[in-house]
Amino acid sequence: MGATRVIETLVLSLLLFLSGSSATQRKKTRAGPRMPCKQMVFYFHDILYNGENAKNATSAIVGAPAWGNRTILAGQNHFGNVVVFDDPITIDNNLHSIPVGRAQGFYLYDRKDYFTAWLGFSFFLNSTQHRGSITFAGADPLNKTRDISVIGGTGDFFMARGIATLMTDAVEGDVYFRLQ
Amino acid sequence: MGATRVIETLVLSLLLFLSGSSATQRKKTRAGPRMPCKQMVFYFHDILYNGENAKNATSAIVGAPAWGNRTILAGQNHFGNVVVFDDPITIDNNLHSIPVGRAQGFYLYDRKDYFTAWLGFSFFLNSTQHRGSITFAGADPLNKTRDISVIGGTGDFFMARGIATLMTDAVEGDVYFRLQ
Amino acid sequence: MGATRVIETLVLSLLLFLSGSSATQRKKTRAGPRMPCKQMVFYFHDILYNGENAKNATSAIVGAPAWGNRTILAGQNHFGNVVVFDDPITIDNNLHSIPVGRAQGFYLYDRKDYFTAWLGFSFFLNSTQHRGSITFAGADPLNKTRDISVIGGTGDFFMARGIATLMTDAVEGDVYFRLQ
Repeated sequence: MGATRVIETLVLSLLLFLSGSSATQRKKTRAGPRMPCKQMVFYFHDILYNGENAKNATSAIVGAPAWGNRTILAGQNHFGNVVVFDDPITIDNNLHSIPVGRAQGFYLYDRKDYFTAWLGFSFFLNSTQHRGSITFAGADPLNKTRDISVIGGTGDFFMARGIATLMTDAVEGDVYFRLQ
Repeated sequence: MGATRVIETLVLSLLLFLSGSSATQRKKTRAGPRMPCKQMVFYFHDILYNGENAKNATSAIVGAPAWGNRTILAGQNHFGNVVVFDDPITIDNNLHSIPVGRAQGFYLYDRKDYFTAWLGFSFFLNSTQHRGSITFAGADPLNKTRDISVIGGTGDFFMARGIATLMTDAVEGDVYFRLQ
Repeated sequence: MGATRVIETLVLSLLLFLSGSSATQRKKTRAGPRMPCKQMVFYFHDILYNGENAKNATSAIVGAPAWGNRTILAGQNHFGNVVVFDDPITIDNNLHSIPVGRAQGFYLYDRKDYFTAWLGFSFFLNSTQHRGSITFAGADPLNKTRDISVIGGTGDFFMARGIATLMTDAVEGDVYFRLQ
């Protein structure tokens, strides 16, 4: 989620602890024992609106500090920019693979001296394997890879807890980036 | 939370798992066993500021993409609009009932092809029955009813986990809507 | 986080329940038993950008309702203002102490009749004692002190749950405030 890049792919490695009670069991009055964790990897692809790519853009700047605007990320490492996104999720790093869901929410740049972002978003999965949502918040800028907390889930991910690791997988020209 | 509607009522059905340790017990050093869940239903009422209803409005657009403004929800299904709200909560679907609390936080529209919203908000309850807050995040647009995760709580809802289901209960003209 | 104040110090008293599995243990497939809670106190210091203090400011208004702007907090108790911050954390109430980390995220004013704020932010700690992040959301305006939920953690605070209490510790002139 950088300055001039427009398309970025990110990789998200997910470690989930699920409660014993699934969505279909959740009428029961007690939460079951925690199940072993589940590991998953997803890619999502972010194309920031730049004033010219309305058709392809998957995200847009919606907040900016007084010194910024909504088509160009602001100076000072974009401090204060708020971006809303609706990114396709794929299971490989190809933007054009069939999406298994959407990553939807926001991120904001919150550091003046180098890039860091605070994110609040959900993965909405709707494939034969997974149906439900996982909600994330936070982001740990102290590490090269950014750890982010799982704060909730619905459907197959009812009451999920855990952690995800975000990494930038690729930035294509000024036009493309991915997140593992 | 739609295009031309100004007042909307929403219904929130809540399924909570509470830790054994309540607010008054939380000096104890261990979390107790999970208690049976609690089911509750609340209504809240959202009146969006439209440039003319400053006195009655309970919410306002505070962020918009470059193609939007802050008195009219933007095109493309309001993608990128960020709305801050302070809505009265009632236990029936009547806006004029005595509120039992406030629903406060934000929602943002995060899908270009149809309406979906990502929410971060808290219920602040202050009645003879309940005192404390429940904090929610997320929203599952894959279902007709939208599931949203309980991510925390204070007071009577200390350490709450669970899930809530949001439904639009009524939209009154261009002026009113409720959320069950 | 008030009208004319520019620097404010806040005190955050933290009560954490940690899972037995630490960051280094999290390859194991089961969450361990909950460990006794941990109590900590931190101070953080917020200097709001006012159009003139770009060098020292640690926060900036990035969203405002139609009746507001981004250098002066809006009327009606700042309802709708969204502020992004990157505040130093210290272990005493002195802004000039060596920071043990950063508090990063956002708050938004969500009440028209008196000041209340909804916050989403993380503490990023990077000292000899603590390394990791704690993510918070919510805020309980019913009490003088504001309870806020711990919604996740990474590193030393992996899978943390708990509660924090926020208090304004000091507001210095129109220029300074702290949060315990």
